[in-house]
Amino acid sequence: MATWIPGQLAMPNPIPQTMSAVLLTGHGGLDRLVYRDDVPVPRPEAGQVLVQVTATAKNNTDRKAREGHYSTRDDDEAVSFAIGGKPTLTFPRIQGADVVGTVAAVGDGMNPARLGERGLLDFNIYGTGRRDINLVPDYFGHGADGGFAEYVVVPDDQFHAVTDPTLADAELAALGMCSYQTAYHMLTAADIHPGEHVLITGASGGVGTALIQLCRIIGAIPYASSTPAKAPALCELGAQAVFDRRDTRDFVARTAAATGGVPFDAVMDLVGGASTRRFIEAMTFDMVARTTYPRLSIAGASESNVSEIPWTLIYLYQVRIVGVSHGTRAEAEQLVHWIRAGRLRPVLQAAFPLSAIHDCERYFVDRAAGHLGKVVVVPDAQWATHGAPFALA
Amino acid sequence: MATWIPGQLAMPNPIPQTMSAVLLTGHGGLDRLVYRDDVPVPRPEAGQVLVQVTATAKNNTDRKAREGHYSTRDDDEAVSFAIGGKPTLTFPRIQGADVVGTVAAVGDGMNPARLGERGLLDFNIYGTGRRDINLVPDYFGHGADGGFAEYVVVPDDQFHAVTDPTLADAELAALGMCSYQTAYHMLTAADIHPGEHVLITGASGGVGTALIQLCRIIGAIPYASSTPAKAPALCELGAQAVFDRRDTRDFVARTAAATGGVPFDAVMDLVGGASTRRFIEAMTFDMVARTTYPRLSIAGASESNVSEIPWTLIYLYQVRIVGVSHGTRAEAEQLVHWIRAGRLRPVLQAAFPLSAIHDCERYFVDRAAGHLGKVVVVPDAQWATHGAPFALA
Repeated sequence: MATWIPGQLAMPNPIPQTMSAVLLTGHGGLDRLVYRDDVPVPRPEAGQVLVQVTATAKNNTDRKAREGHYSTRDDDEAVSFAIGGKPTLTFPRIQGADVVGTVAAVGDGMNPARLGERGLLDFNIYGTGRRDINLVPDYFGHGADGGFAEYVVVPDDQFHAVTDPTLADAELAALGMCSYQTAYHMLTAADIHPGEHVLITGASGGVGTALIQLCRIIGAIPYASSTPAKAPALCELGAQAVFDRRDTRDFVARTAAATGGVPFDAVMDLVGGASTRRFIEAMTFDMVARTTYPRLSIAGASESNVSEIPWTLIYLYQVRIVGVSHGTRAEAEQLVHWIRAGRLRPVLQAAFPLSAIHDCERYFVDRAAGHLGKVVVVPDAQWATHGAPFALA
Repeated sequence: MATWIPGQLAMPNPIPQTMSAVLLTGHGGLDRLVYRDDVPVPRPEAGQVLVQVTATAKNNTDRKAREGHYSTRDDDEAVSFAIGGKPTLTFPRIQGADVVGTVAAVGDGMNPARLGERGLLDFNIYGTGRRDINLVPDYFGHGADGGFAEYVVVPDDQFHAVTDPTLADAELAALGMCSYQTAYHMLTAADIHPGEHVLITGASGGVGTALIQLCRIIGAIPYASSTPAKAPALCELGAQAVFDRRDTRDFVARTAAATGGVPFDAVMDLVGGASTRRFIEAMTFDMVARTTYPRLSIAGASESNVSEIPWTLIYLYQVRIVGVSHGTRAEAEQLVHWIRAGRLRPVLQAAFPLSAIHDCERYFVDRAAGHLGKVVVVPDAQWATHGAPFALA
């Protein structure tokens, strides 16, 4: 039913039958990521567009999904999001959530004027049409093929045009929703208001650097917990102060000194574990100074998956804990608006060619302290234009 | 400055200089509760009324405060609410939060028409004038003297007239705010809507029985976790179904069978500990069936003060945890409205004379399974009228 007819579209390049892509062939190590050049190019159906990929950002979720870290229920076999049904991660799968590229073909009934349009993918596989809530986490690169390939098929209404010529494709990919939408939902779910003091833990990652910028956009004051080596870059992004995360002594006193003596209004926690209790106490040490409930948004647990928080600390101090894994359609659209308006600054560290995906994965995991920012993957055929300017020195 | 002049008021009984009261003389066992008949009758200041007590309900918080269980910070010396300042529990202290009685005198500038009026105390010591939020927990019977006495001085605007002659004073005390306001705030903080399926754990206590009734008033459907012996009484109060809390096998499947297969929309948890993970899973087992975030209100931890919940369960399933210790002025006023309208049913088990406070405490802690409802203390001079009809058989 699709109107997709290779060779008949007025495109710069005709669409081939096969493409280069990295296939995830099963759960496991890097050997499960296989680079091939004979993968069929997908075809857009009604409601979809075919995107020729120019840059796709890496995210932690790629590795977690590959290694099978999403076994959140008693059933250890369920290594994928299986919320309300069967696991959606089947093999082979092309990973890569934060896709940038140009529209190469449109499905049946779609607007042909989009051909050639550059855009950014909202990576969610939404379970319903609701714009205000998104209860089922799944995404392109997990429950459907993503952007570690030359082409990808995505929903027309989730491929958002961003024309700003000062923003390179790799930079636009570094502004992808996987980090920014999660970060923004952490703030909205915690009802953050202008003027509030917000602590961001694990601040140097993709979500953390997004949180710093988004706090400034909405008028909140972000404080970061990270390493001293990354402090200058985090302050440059907007952090009011950076606390050394390795120094656990007198944490509350040190944070109070930075805020002018008042408790944090809220904490955006990506660390978890034993640290979380300290983060809560940095909100509750002076309840008389508060005018709102203490709020803790959590979207990760890099330190430990179990936080032994005394329930009395939660209920006597009326703490509100909000679990966040992703955001809503409305939030994605707000973020695209801010990207188009030049309000968000990409934090891009390096680009790798798609064929070097193993090197890229190793670098992503092992890169030295002091480095922060996204790592982007560029198809080899696009490398000269979209990757080389951002290659590692 | 007070206009309080003993003997000159047109009251049924002149106000004596001294009264019977139970003094809490320090942290410890029952021996710290001392019944005396030579305690000075307090005098109302501007903004206050003097209440002649006819019935005061017991609450768990009485015992926790006596035993010093509120040491929630690293400072084990702080055995009282010390949120933002010094502990407010000083000795000697008259405990008793949910006070019913009649206005015996009014402070300077107060309305003398209130003399003789029966009412119920909103037990909070509010930190600010705000009606929508109440961040600092303290209350009459803890930070100021309460109702285990013949007289108590309370704020004029927190002594709410309830004239309904079908409601005995002891029954009105059983509807006191300590349980009902906490219960109501658990529901409002979790944004419970009509038609939602709500699990109530520890359902046979004061807060639990309040939750069952309040769910029905707002149109939600309450389910209870308790013991089989208490199930008939809980169903009579409004519970849709009662789950045996001692049976931990297949908890999710058993609850799903009761709800028609859908997850609980929210859980009101008074139990904590290892059970909390099961309670959360009874909300998250089918995310596709949900239209709202899973919400867990916690206001107690009778099983254990530490719940080892995997953070991934919280953030992948977007669970919202709300700590609740008490409610707001607006909620107290709503509850008084419902009491006046006859919408809440007292769950009163027994009355004890004030001089038998030790027997009363022991009964409150040790009473056999199968009994539920409030225990009320009545001054000996009021016993024949207000206590005897509710004495243990």
